[in-house]
Amino acid sequence: MKHRIVYQGIPGAFSHIAALGHFGADNTFSGLPTFHEIFARIENRQADYGVIPLENSLAGSIGENYDLLYKNDVSVIDEYYQPIRHHVLISKSPHSDKTIGIQNIQRIYSHPKALEQCIKFFKNHDYIAPQAYNDTAEAAEYVASEQRTDIAAIASKEAAELYGLDILVRDVQDNINNWTRFFIITSVHPEPDILVHDTVYKCSIIFTLPHIPGSLYDIIGIFANAHLNLSKIESRPIHGKAFEYVFYIDVEFHSHDYALIHKLIRLCSEMTNEIKVLGYYPKAHIKNNF
Amino acid sequence: MKHRIVYQGIPGAFSHIAALGHFGADNTFSGLPTFHEIFARIENRQADYGVIPLENSLAGSIGENYDLLYKNDVSVIDEYYQPIRHHVLISKSPHSDKTIGIQNIQRIYSHPKALEQCIKFFKNHDYIAPQAYNDTAEAAEYVASEQRTDIAAIASKEAAELYGLDILVRDVQDNINNWTRFFIITSVHPEPDILVHDTVYKCSIIFTLPHIPGSLYDIIGIFANAHLNLSKIESRPIHGKAFEYVFYIDVEFHSHDYALIHKLIRLCSEMTNEIKVLGYYPKAHIKNNF
Repeated sequence: MKHRIVYQGIPGAFSHIAALGHFGADNTFSGLPTFHEIFARIENRQADYGVIPLENSLAGSIGENYDLLYKNDVSVIDEYYQPIRHHVLISKSPHSDKTIGIQNIQRIYSHPKALEQCIKFFKNHDYIAPQAYNDTAEAAEYVASEQRTDIAAIASKEAAELYGLDILVRDVQDNINNWTRFFIITSVHPEPDILVHDTVYKCSIIFTLPHIPGSLYDIIGIFANAHLNLSKIESRPIHGKAFEYVFYIDVEFHSHDYALIHKLIRLCSEMTNEIKVLGYYPKAHIKNNF
Repeated sequence: MKHRIVYQGIPGAFSHIAALGHFGADNTFSGLPTFHEIFARIENRQADYGVIPLENSLAGSIGENYDLLYKNDVSVIDEYYQPIRHHVLISKSPHSDKTIGIQNIQRIYSHPKALEQCIKFFKNHDYIAPQAYNDTAEAAEYVASEQRTDIAAIASKEAAELYGLDILVRDVQDNINNWTRFFIITSVHPEPDILVHDTVYKCSIIFTLPHIPGSLYDIIGIFANAHLNLSKIESRPIHGKAFEYVFYIDVEFHSHDYALIHKLIRLCSEMTNEIKVLGYYPKAHIKNNF
């Protein structure tokens, strides 16, 4: 059975690549203009799964999605690490005997964050003007539509394939340790009775705390005393409440500790103002696709 | 004496506005293309102070600057909260009797993040095409240079003043709780002997931990047991080391506890792999400029 999967952006965007990587191509994928619409489609059951970026290793956390996870009734059922590789893409030459070189390119379109991640390339080719575009994949689509020999896009190899572009220069990003962590969200709340045997899981939890000194320490202590590792911790301001915070943590646990983690969350709920378990999911690894 | 102050972007960018707000106009301000160059100018003593964004209340943390603070030898001497307000800016009408209305506008230029923060405005004016630009202030400069009646920029009122534009629609951002937190950095390491009397300070600390369960708990406990509040906590991946983290915390303390905070940091340094005190600075407040 095909799943209906939604992501933010157009085909060839890194969210689309992550969605394809996680679910495989034999599903129905829809790109939406905003993260908000992903959550709306999931809550309305107009889509089965959403793929949302949480954090980029270079750019930092994507605050909007943390806030949407806090406010909306969805479950996290998986995580996925997508390596981010930027390539210079050009129109296929109409005359196969004529080769376009980097010296022909005068302007390169991409998302400003992608352009920022390729500073060394632009320093080494200072005759090329970087030009902002809404999205890396949209930049690729634009370059494909123009059929010119003096412009290029910086985008993924998947965008090159989708829009029929050639890769002129590979891997122009300054830092190869560039990845984005995605969550797979759904409206169903599949609280599994038993987890996959002998597997490391993560549990993602959002909570707010009373204004009592040491309350964060006490929460972290619940997991530390059980010898469980926190693989992520982040405080985010609560909108409209200056200097009040919502905390976001990922706890790693072994599948045989599933009963334990439930007990610890019950302990947490006695010490937090609000608490929301986003989900339990197997710990993913960064696949190096170089 | 005038200070040499560097920020990322061009005049009218929010970093420039924050720099002006913190230091006052009677200084020398230089916009630089990248955050990396701000740190280089500070370390080389080619500038006295740098103004860098750390976190936006909606978009999230700016990972690159956390990483640059971790890697470079600078001190944080102040924080500054800049409210972010987006306005639709148009060219001044050459004929003062002819008024441009929003119905005349066909295209609006701005940074993609700013465009994303004005979704309701674009839904209510769906005949207007949003168009990405490198920066809000650069979009304002571009609109000013074009002198057309059918294009506009979304940028700050300071950008309107600098580039001679009119404000057509004020406050088109979806969420008014939109602010960016900036750090003021310098190469001097002014470890003050005495802090300003009777003032709440923050101390920002970056550290990495040994792979021992509960090590984060122990660090947080040092401050919790002294009844000091953490106003910020964040874990960031260390580049090139998959699943190793650097932790970033802000500790609030009263100026009369300055000796205590030194003692606590000495305790921390015995339990961390690496530790770096970024600086001590008075706690700032979000100024509501509506």
